[in-house]
Amino acid sequence: MSRIEPRNYAEAIQAGLEKYVPEEKLLQGGLFQAMRYSLLLGGKRIRPILLLEFCGACGGDQESAIPFACALEMIHTYSLIHDDLPCMDDDSMRRGKPSNHVVFGEARALLAGDALLTMAFETMLSQDSIASVGPQRAARAAGILARASGAYGMAGGQMIDLQSEDQKIPADTLIYMDECKTGTLIVAAAKMGCVLADAEEEKLHAAEKYAKSIGLAFQIQDDILDVEGEQDSLGKPIGSDLENGKSTYVSILGMEKARALVQSLTDEATAALSCFGARGDYLRELAIALSSRKN
Amino acid sequence: MSRIEPRNYAEAIQAGLEKYVPEEKLLQGGLFQAMRYSLLLGGKRIRPILLLEFCGACGGDQESAIPFACALEMIHTYSLIHDDLPCMDDDSMRRGKPSNHVVFGEARALLAGDALLTMAFETMLSQDSIASVGPQRAARAAGILARASGAYGMAGGQMIDLQSEDQKIPADTLIYMDECKTGTLIVAAAKMGCVLADAEEEKLHAAEKYAKSIGLAFQIQDDILDVEGEQDSLGKPIGSDLENGKSTYVSILGMEKARALVQSLTDEATAALSCFGARGDYLRELAIALSSRKN
Repeated sequence: MSRIEPRNYAEAIQAGLEKYVPEEKLLQGGLFQAMRYSLLLGGKRIRPILLLEFCGACGGDQESAIPFACALEMIHTYSLIHDDLPCMDDDSMRRGKPSNHVVFGEARALLAGDALLTMAFETMLSQDSIASVGPQRAARAAGILARASGAYGMAGGQMIDLQSEDQKIPADTLIYMDECKTGTLIVAAAKMGCVLADAEEEKLHAAEKYAKSIGLAFQIQDDILDVEGEQDSLGKPIGSDLENGKSTYVSILGMEKARALVQSLTDEATAALSCFGARGDYLRELAIALSSRKN
Repeated sequence: MSRIEPRNYAEAIQAGLEKYVPEEKLLQGGLFQAMRYSLLLGGKRIRPILLLEFCGACGGDQESAIPFACALEMIHTYSLIHDDLPCMDDDSMRRGKPSNHVVFGEARALLAGDALLTMAFETMLSQDSIASVGPQRAARAAGILARASGAYGMAGGQMIDLQSEDQKIPADTLIYMDECKTGTLIVAAAKMGCVLADAEEEKLHAAEKYAKSIGLAFQIQDDILDVEGEQDSLGKPIGSDLENGKSTYVSILGMEKARALVQSLTDEATAALSCFGARGDYLRELAIALSSRKN
């Protein structure tokens, strides 16, 4: 059973991404270049880390989970590239660098997003990956990711976001939108880790509860930072949500209640981990670290 | 072993697509509406038909192959939606109707494409589908489709197309581009059908050879029809490739040689089917019908 030390997660993920989306001298090499630009730029890698950690906490083989961890990051990155396009949010900066379409043009950015989304499934369902985790786990984990990314998950959340633009929406709509848009992918990460370790149902449910709570807490913290954060550490203009007339947790609940909600969700998340015993320690710390993050 | 009569293929595929992408009253219902608009518009359904027919010719269960046949059509449809976007080919008509983005706007069309691409994998890797064909076949077939659709396949072909715009390209580049852009998906359809029937390697190779030949013949015939076809039956303006300054098989080879190449590729395709005996009859007829099509 191959384990990876948490301090080596980021490196293992980066190495996987480099391997699955290599530089290519093919005629379509420019597509790989655009995919790599956004994929290798960094970011918190929260989703792949969650997958690896839940896989390890359930006693699974983390090394063979790397293709699945990388697939999560590919899906996340594709969504950022498409989100930044002029016909969507029209953002020219991402993670402190020019957006994909600013560097490579709209057409290539569109294709890079499409190709990253597809590469996620190619990576999880390669012959090596299927042989390594077994077809049952590979198919199930990839199916969870597909469901979480599509019309019932992330893409559906984007659609709700699109039609909510420039108008006030009630808190329950905002929560449903965020559950779709970002929550489902975070929940998928946790569940995929458990599935790859062939964990019992109890742990799958605990993972889902934990991930749902930290996912929502993450969004609320985002809104808090959009009002309070420092532009340098955030990598995007402060107050941009407010200027766009978007409903946020802070605008709906007020700052104080928003902060209290982040705290109670974080408490719920850590409480959900009881069935993991000491093996849940890293995940407890992660929930707390995310709730107090400054960027 | 459930078999479907060829005359019922189109109906079975349409019913599958209706089921896997239903009308939804969810907040993101408008996304399903846009997905259905392009998906249910019709088209030749060549890819899903190829899959079903190869599955049947290899003695497989066609009913349980329906999710995979539908997944092919979802991938094909997503590629058309994204292709028509203003930043790509900027086409306002598709299959004789206004393009997706003309009806729903660019942002929703972008999302509808993303969601169809994702729904393809969701459909193939649903719990029902995995249970029905078994995880080994499900994972392998979905892996083939992923590889064929992504950076090494269709999306890569689009990239080559993008950088070849408004310039003359040599015949071998055009062939490589078309192999990536459309050939790989047609080959994937044939191979997936064999894989779902757990066919021996000999049949997989024959299927690949057949599909590669009809795929290229299809492209050449497209170029011939672009010059010669009637606008009504084609559903797009005649001579549009020529006006765009694109290199085509007709512009490179001349009309006579282009026609001869369609014929020889079709002969190669039908010859490849020898190991299927009488079970390859429908596929032989299909190759011939495609080579003499008028739209």
